[in-house]
Amino acid sequence: MIDWKDVDLDNCPVVGALDVIGDRWTMLILREAMNGVTRFDELVDHIGIGRSTLSDRIKKLVGAGILTERTYQETGSRPRHEYVLTDKGWGLRNVVVALKEWGDRHVLAADERPLDLIDKSTGSPVRLALVDDDGNLVPDERLRHAPGPGFRTLSEPASS
Amino acid sequence: MIDWKDVDLDNCPVVGALDVIGDRWTMLILREAMNGVTRFDELVDHIGIGRSTLSDRIKKLVGAGILTERTYQETGSRPRHEYVLTDKGWGLRNVVVALKEWGDRHVLAADERPLDLIDKSTGSPVRLALVDDDGNLVPDERLRHAPGPGFRTLSEPASS
Repeated sequence: MIDWKDVDLDNCPVVGALDVIGDRWTMLILREAMNGVTRFDELVDHIGIGRSTLSDRIKKLVGAGILTERTYQETGSRPRHEYVLTDKGWGLRNVVVALKEWGDRHVLAADERPLDLIDKSTGSPVRLALVDDDGNLVPDERLRHAPGPGFRTLSEPASS
Repeated sequence: MIDWKDVDLDNCPVVGALDVIGDRWTMLILREAMNGVTRFDELVDHIGIGRSTLSDRIKKLVGAGILTERTYQETGSRPRHEYVLTDKGWGLRNVVVALKEWGDRHVLAADERPLDLIDKSTGSPVRLALVDDDGNLVPDERLRHAPGPGFRTLSEPASS
């Protein structure tokens, strides 16, 4: 049994993730990108974000390899950029879906849920769940943490 | 097909969730609570959070119904409080797990993952996945948004 109070949190992946995407505007830019809103002016209009803030956040997301810049050109206009998710960026989808599910259930009123995530081939609602390697649901009471390769405790630091 | 740029985001559940738990310290307090670290001094020691900041965040989380206060007493000490997750608070587990999974894969080095989430009855690794009502995995290409009861567009606001 792991004594959580003795776990060394220096390499905590939750902290590592929040360092990159823990900013509120960043999460909203990711929400938009996952739904196909990728152009600068569209983002400004839809999120209501200031241009300089958006520019700063996009630069950080491109630098972190979460968004990548792509050029597009509409007839009669100069070439412009849009910003699409990389595979690393798409890896954040479950973070956004988890926030959505909790907000739907616990923040919004019952009849206020704006969007449902569904399986388009069946119409069935889709939700996040914890599954094992074979795709079977794992009930809460069977969940446990086991030490991984980078496990360290405060009382016994890794040898250097 | 929903035109995302025309979706009214006034009741976005992701924004609603971030309003409540979008603060970095808040996420770390939740991580600790999910792992059984619930006492004020233990939280100060383990997270490295200032006492007044912790006090403020706990007050907000109790006010939001995410943590609840419980009294405990150790021999020879006065009664003290600890802060445990409500059902609403446990509803945030997938947010923390989603951040962990992404941080494990994309922020930490390959041999630095400190903890694995496993099924204790089989030892199998456990991960988040999108499933339908019958618990079957839904592949990415079948995911779609459908309008929910609170769906509104910017071009056609709900009648009041």
